[in-house]
Amino acid sequence: MNRRVVLSMIGRVVLVEAALLLLPLFVSIRFKEDCVIAFLISIAVALVVGSALAFIFKPKQRNVYAKDGFVIVAFSWLTLSAIGALPFYISHEIPSYVDAFFETVSGFTTTGASILTDIEAMSKGLLFWRSFTHWIGGMGVLVFVMAIIPANSDRSIHILRAEVPGPTFGKLVPRIADTAKILYLIYIALTIVEIIFLSCGDMNFFESVVHTFGTAGTGGFGVKGDSIGGYSAYSQWVITIFMMVFGVNFNLYYLILVRKLKPVVKSGELWLYTAIAAISTTAIAINIHSRFPDISTAVRHSAFQVASIMSTTGYSTVDFNNWPQLSRAILFLLMFIGACAGSTAGGIKISRVLLLFKIIKREFRHLTHPRSVGVIKMEGKRVDDLTVKGVNAYFAIYVLCLMVVFLLICFEPFGLETNLTAAVSCFNNVGPGLGWVGPAYSYASYTAFSKIVLSFAMLLGRLEIYPLIVAFLPSTWSKRS
Amino acid sequence: MNRRVVLSMIGRVVLVEAALLLLPLFVSIRFKEDCVIAFLISIAVALVVGSALAFIFKPKQRNVYAKDGFVIVAFSWLTLSAIGALPFYISHEIPSYVDAFFETVSGFTTTGASILTDIEAMSKGLLFWRSFTHWIGGMGVLVFVMAIIPANSDRSIHILRAEVPGPTFGKLVPRIADTAKILYLIYIALTIVEIIFLSCGDMNFFESVVHTFGTAGTGGFGVKGDSIGGYSAYSQWVITIFMMVFGVNFNLYYLILVRKLKPVVKSGELWLYTAIAAISTTAIAINIHSRFPDISTAVRHSAFQVASIMSTTGYSTVDFNNWPQLSRAILFLLMFIGACAGSTAGGIKISRVLLLFKIIKREFRHLTHPRSVGVIKMEGKRVDDLTVKGVNAYFAIYVLCLMVVFLLICFEPFGLETNLTAAVSCFNNVGPGLGWVGPAYSYASYTAFSKIVLSFAMLLGRLEIYPLIVAFLPSTWSKRS
Repeated sequence: MNRRVVLSMIGRVVLVEAALLLLPLFVSIRFKEDCVIAFLISIAVALVVGSALAFIFKPKQRNVYAKDGFVIVAFSWLTLSAIGALPFYISHEIPSYVDAFFETVSGFTTTGASILTDIEAMSKGLLFWRSFTHWIGGMGVLVFVMAIIPANSDRSIHILRAEVPGPTFGKLVPRIADTAKILYLIYIALTIVEIIFLSCGDMNFFESVVHTFGTAGTGGFGVKGDSIGGYSAYSQWVITIFMMVFGVNFNLYYLILVRKLKPVVKSGELWLYTAIAAISTTAIAINIHSRFPDISTAVRHSAFQVASIMSTTGYSTVDFNNWPQLSRAILFLLMFIGACAGSTAGGIKISRVLLLFKIIKREFRHLTHPRSVGVIKMEGKRVDDLTVKGVNAYFAIYVLCLMVVFLLICFEPFGLETNLTAAVSCFNNVGPGLGWVGPAYSYASYTAFSKIVLSFAMLLGRLEIYPLIVAFLPSTWSKRS
Repeated sequence: MNRRVVLSMIGRVVLVEAALLLLPLFVSIRFKEDCVIAFLISIAVALVVGSALAFIFKPKQRNVYAKDGFVIVAFSWLTLSAIGALPFYISHEIPSYVDAFFETVSGFTTTGASILTDIEAMSKGLLFWRSFTHWIGGMGVLVFVMAIIPANSDRSIHILRAEVPGPTFGKLVPRIADTAKILYLIYIALTIVEIIFLSCGDMNFFESVVHTFGTAGTGGFGVKGDSIGGYSAYSQWVITIFMMVFGVNFNLYYLILVRKLKPVVKSGELWLYTAIAAISTTAIAINIHSRFPDISTAVRHSAFQVASIMSTTGYSTVDFNNWPQLSRAILFLLMFIGACAGSTAGGIKISRVLLLFKIIKREFRHLTHPRSVGVIKMEGKRVDDLTVKGVNAYFAIYVLCLMVVFLLICFEPFGLETNLTAAVSCFNNVGPGLGWVGPAYSYASYTAFSKIVLSFAMLLGRLEIYPLIVAFLPSTWSKRS
């Protein structure tokens, strides 16, 4: 492993974080809040740590191999969260460091699971930072670094591969730095559009920005105890639509920009994504309609919750934990699926689900016609065996990790429903679960041990498992490699 | 499809069932019970239906292809259950036919999920039949047919493949009929040994036989409302050990018989099976020890429940639904794993779990050393790509089926814990779940619709999904094939 490259890269990431912390600093200065000092100290720490790592460990040779990519991504995210938690802790608005770390990991991983019991009591600067971490984490901080700092080697594709969700990461254009820039420009453009739309409704500018961050990163941190429940139907529909929009593969937006509409219209992933959302919304709306004055209200709440869970955002307009069992079961299953690959969403990802369906179909063909040749096609192209193997292995390790996380938090006295949905929700970066971690409650009552386990679950989910595990494998650190 | 072969084979199975029904008939005559007439009518029905199918549809050519094997197995099991339910229904001891069907499917699939709320009120003849279905279903009724009726074609391996659980079915000896005979002889021998051991304890002969049937088939039907809880520690330990014994791949017993001990000692599946059982027993014993007067009692109850759930039997000595969350979570996860392939147990099977672990390991090797060649070895032999593909596809369709079953029973008002564990427990042929389907309760309060769904779930689980789905695929019935 090229340790110098790894450390200097982490240093750069921390320096970028120092710069990003300026934004919430300005917000807290603007609102004349006490947390200004907490931000100043945090920025100082980030500057010292970042400079130390970036300049002391100047790499002699800049090649980044697959393994290095995983290690860089894993430790960047850990360091980012450790330092990002400082403002909450130093300001005493979150007195426990473990809680602050949980909240920050939840932010960067765009989970939105919170330990806060009184959100309205928080200062605006910290609420802004909390949601801003969603926005940063959504597209990936290393993608950002590569977009602003000229890439030294085409090998840095390994870093992007390790950070951007989904089974495949294709370069949109030949140079990686350009790909990263294009992704971020689309992201920024969509963000601005949503802020404008929300500002036209009943949210003030601060609320519009914060909720846009939460939507864009598919995170789910808000500023109110009842999430989006108190806002107008207009705002709720805007957020519903944008949650779905940010759950779409960003490559499709690029294709639209360059006017290649055919692959967009024919995208199997996009069709399945839309179909699952439509069917779930309809089923839930029928299941809950008697609880609301009219069918349009039922559809609005159903669509909002479905979009929120599928895009793994985690906002809510009502306490869906009280809904009938069928609706709860549908939402529970949607937590696993997530949205499209190459979006800011978590979960298994639609493209993997689609591939698993095709693997099942191939198996039936093989069982009934043993001599058939099993070719799997996706988006018009033949899927090579390595990708199929990769998705199969991912699915297996996904289930294994989920089981381990679930078992580790079962030292808690909560029931199976609470613990299982907490594990599922954090691991898939959704946010709220059912039972005592439902939208009306928080993760505050979990012990510090469980909070650390769930923090790792969120990181595992966001980074799609491999980086974090490879980074902690003894063989990665042995002299030989 | 060779329809004549399919129908005549189902006819034979029903004729065998008529013969098997003589045993509970004798029991009810012996105890002078009213259900004698119910058994006589059922036997008459079985004789008529069986003869009609077997003799009217004499096949012109006897080749059995893969697809035919699936269809034969699926419809044999459905017919078997439909007729096996008659004694319960005709005797009015189970007044609803859906309930009787559920109970019989639960018997043949060795699930042990019951709709009875007062077991002690049942007649001995019916209790005997109920447990005897476990014993018949455990090794497979078609294996039995092939053991007693000379096989017409070596193609009938497809029937065994479709009925015997596990990813691989190897012929022990060149002729299939001999393989089937050997399997049944081992099964009968172990059954007799357990009856002797139990008779030496506090069970009378009738109870010993009935509970041995329940253990041998890894079913779980008993004769008491508190399952095995009322019997002595000796009886509980005997059943614990035999539950584990019947969860072992029967091929290993054959290898022991022919003195090939090396592959038995080195069997990765056996080691993993023992290791999971030992670790789970220890963890649960520590977790629950404060609830019992001494540690040996805690270990006994822990070992019993672990053996019961892992072997997917479903007997209980205490109401483990009231245990702490960690213990419940471990038992819940064990429901999925099940025991060894080629045993009478349900679940995913240890050998598949082992293979999934190896697939994960290969993926990590591939990620960190992209040019490595990924060879997977099991029991000393290289696993071919087709088997790996098969296990991956099975795992995917397993999860998919489970999700569908779970969703379909969520029209019920029970909570997520109850519905999820009901689906998991029935699908994996365990029997009891948690919550309202825990060991202290029954499936009686589910609606007829859910009972039919769960009956299919039990059949799906026992026949390892494919036969039932292939049998209902439109393409199977099209003229072309």
